[in-house]
Amino acid sequence: MKFNNINVRISPLATIGKNVKIGDNTVIYDHVVIKDNCIICNDCVIGEPLNDYYNNPEYTNPVTEIGENSIFRSHSIIYAGNIIGQNFSSGHRVTIRENNIIGKFCNIGTLSDIQGYVTMGNYCRLHSNVHVGQDSKIGNYVFLYPYVVLTNDPHPPSNILKGATIGDYSIIAVHSIILPMVKIGKCCLVAANTTVNKDFEDESLIVGSPGKKIGTVRDIKSRENPEKFHYPWMYNFERGMPWQDEGYDEWLKNNM
Amino acid sequence: MKFNNINVRISPLATIGKNVKIGDNTVIYDHVVIKDNCIICNDCVIGEPLNDYYNNPEYTNPVTEIGENSIFRSHSIIYAGNIIGQNFSSGHRVTIRENNIIGKFCNIGTLSDIQGYVTMGNYCRLHSNVHVGQDSKIGNYVFLYPYVVLTNDPHPPSNILKGATIGDYSIIAVHSIILPMVKIGKCCLVAANTTVNKDFEDESLIVGSPGKKIGTVRDIKSRENPEKFHYPWMYNFERGMPWQDEGYDEWLKNNM
Amino acid sequence: MKFNNINVRISPLATIGKNVKIGDNTVIYDHVVIKDNCIICNDCVIGEPLNDYYNNPEYTNPVTEIGENSIFRSHSIIYAGNIIGQNFSSGHRVTIRENNIIGKFCNIGTLSDIQGYVTMGNYCRLHSNVHVGQDSKIGNYVFLYPYVVLTNDPHPPSNILKGATIGDYSIIAVHSIILPMVKIGKCCLVAANTTVNKDFEDESLIVGSPGKKIGTVRDIKSRENPEKFHYPWMYNFERGMPWQDEGYDEWLKNNM
Repeated sequence: MKFNNINVRISPLATIGKNVKIGDNTVIYDHVVIKDNCIICNDCVIGEPLNDYYNNPEYTNPVTEIGENSIFRSHSIIYAGNIIGQNFSSGHRVTIRENNIIGKFCNIGTLSDIQGYVTMGNYCRLHSNVHVGQDSKIGNYVFLYPYVVLTNDPHPPSNILKGATIGDYSIIAVHSIILPMVKIGKCCLVAANTTVNKDFEDESLIVGSPGKKIGTVRDIKSRENPEKFHYPWMYNFERGMPWQDEGYDEWLKNNM
Repeated sequence: MKFNNINVRISPLATIGKNVKIGDNTVIYDHVVIKDNCIICNDCVIGEPLNDYYNNPEYTNPVTEIGENSIFRSHSIIYAGNIIGQNFSSGHRVTIRENNIIGKFCNIGTLSDIQGYVTMGNYCRLHSNVHVGQDSKIGNYVFLYPYVVLTNDPHPPSNILKGATIGDYSIIAVHSIILPMVKIGKCCLVAANTTVNKDFEDESLIVGSPGKKIGTVRDIKSRENPEKFHYPWMYNFERGMPWQDEGYDEWLKNNM
Repeated sequence: MKFNNINVRISPLATIGKNVKIGDNTVIYDHVVIKDNCIICNDCVIGEPLNDYYNNPEYTNPVTEIGENSIFRSHSIIYAGNIIGQNFSSGHRVTIRENNIIGKFCNIGTLSDIQGYVTMGNYCRLHSNVHVGQDSKIGNYVFLYPYVVLTNDPHPPSNILKGATIGDYSIIAVHSIILPMVKIGKCCLVAANTTVNKDFEDESLIVGSPGKKIGTVRDIKSRENPEKFHYPWMYNFERGMPWQDEGYDEWLKNNM
């Protein structure tokens, strides 16, 4: 049904790996490198030229790299200058501005908007409609839920651009806001609709506006089984994670 | 101006009713059934193949049904496996994932994202940019305003998937969040920016984070006429509702 | 790379100025007037017909005017009936419904949704994913940050349609909601995640849900230099503003 090679445009300066499928109406611009076994669905734009393109007749598109086994769902716009690791997957209508460095096995959901100059580790999951401001630093195994916003301007509008930092294994629930320069430690849980305006240490459970630490994530009992505790979540969730099948402790031991 | 039959692709396995208009650049995939008098605007995708399509050479697209007199505005993506009732209307860039059952006379606004496996009654109005998580159950005559999120994972990330339930005639105002497993009764009003983390009975007026019942909807005086009360809203609003012209009481009597 | 004249459709009833670039797959409908030196990127729709088009065989598209030197990034949908001033710029996937009057040098970010019948002054900056309800009145030099919502129905659902009013130089931070009929004075700062439900005077610093005045913007010390104050911001930010290079006081003197 898909991949009929209708209205596809691929720059002669792009490099397309083996067994790559490219959907109808998709455009691949100059200096895009797509590694093997990727799927670029319909109506995508990969390597969107930067703003300078419109004014500078000498403009050259920076290199864009898409790791192997990645899939971009339809209508995604990926600017030039991104380095995206292997086994990436996107939802529909994702917008990824220029010059992000995104690790492997990341997933960015429908309508999410990555503003550029962001670093993201491996195995991150951004659900639908997440907004990541420029200069954000996102660790590994981080989950950002719908309508989460990471900001970067402490005095809007100003010329200061200092993003937030999210530690490994941390979870930010729906509609929460991380204010500029904030550092969230490892394995924290930011509850729904929280506004985080200061730093928090590892394993903090953060609630409210402004967000306060009301305990540690280890205090949270499982709703399914009140005898059990859910966090650190790595012991209770492994779908798509590198410790899948093996278990977190065993994996950690083998990967130290 | 529209409907020039340019770059339209309709699967030979789709069934298109009488007097259906299909916009330029629109794709209709296998086993889509579009009933009479529908309008599918430009750049839409109806019957988007599920994820399995990319890996399974034996993949068959499930049936998608679009009821008569429906209109989908441009750039909407409707996955396969949806059953959508008559007189549906969508805004632009709506994303409807697979296997929802949506009643008749519903309206889903621009950028809204229905995650799949949702049931929705009749005459619901979802405004722009509403996010409905999997396994949500939405009654009849429900209004969800912009940036409302219905969630489904009580311990993110976990393998539990238990959506919220919204009763008939309930109204959720802008930017509110309904947490997993929550049941909101009939004819409730959830104020703007509320985080609802527990169940509420019929006609509750719910405010705050976490949401508290501060009275019933019958306490709210009309701003237009302080002698009058606005809720239950069915007595004061009938545009597009089945009791239009007839009045709510009369309609109820005739439809018991 | 862009502007290959592929699959472009321009109505013979549209008027296109000098040195206008129109991207691939873009549609320009009847009675659109695009002034000189504009760039309309790929996959845009300018002059989208109003709802009446689908039912009324006598439908005539109202005039749409796009001021000179404007740029619309890809996948933007601009309805017919808009009057947009010079040097406008949009992000991707912007939706602008009918009959707004938008001043000059405005910028509307990716995914933003302007619902129609809005007035907006000059030099406004709407970042990504801002939702502006019908009948909103936005002054000059106003900044609206991601996920801000301006609403218009005091008793949802009702037939009342009374938008908010935002004074010149006011700043609304991320995820804030302005409730219907609210008037925000000039040079106010609405903090992140605030719900504004009443009027505020000029230079108010507004925080919380419901929003309260906790001081004036002149109380806020600069994070970069604690000896200095950032607001009124016009003295500390001039990028893209008419007082750039000259300074705010000097510009004000010369433009009285």
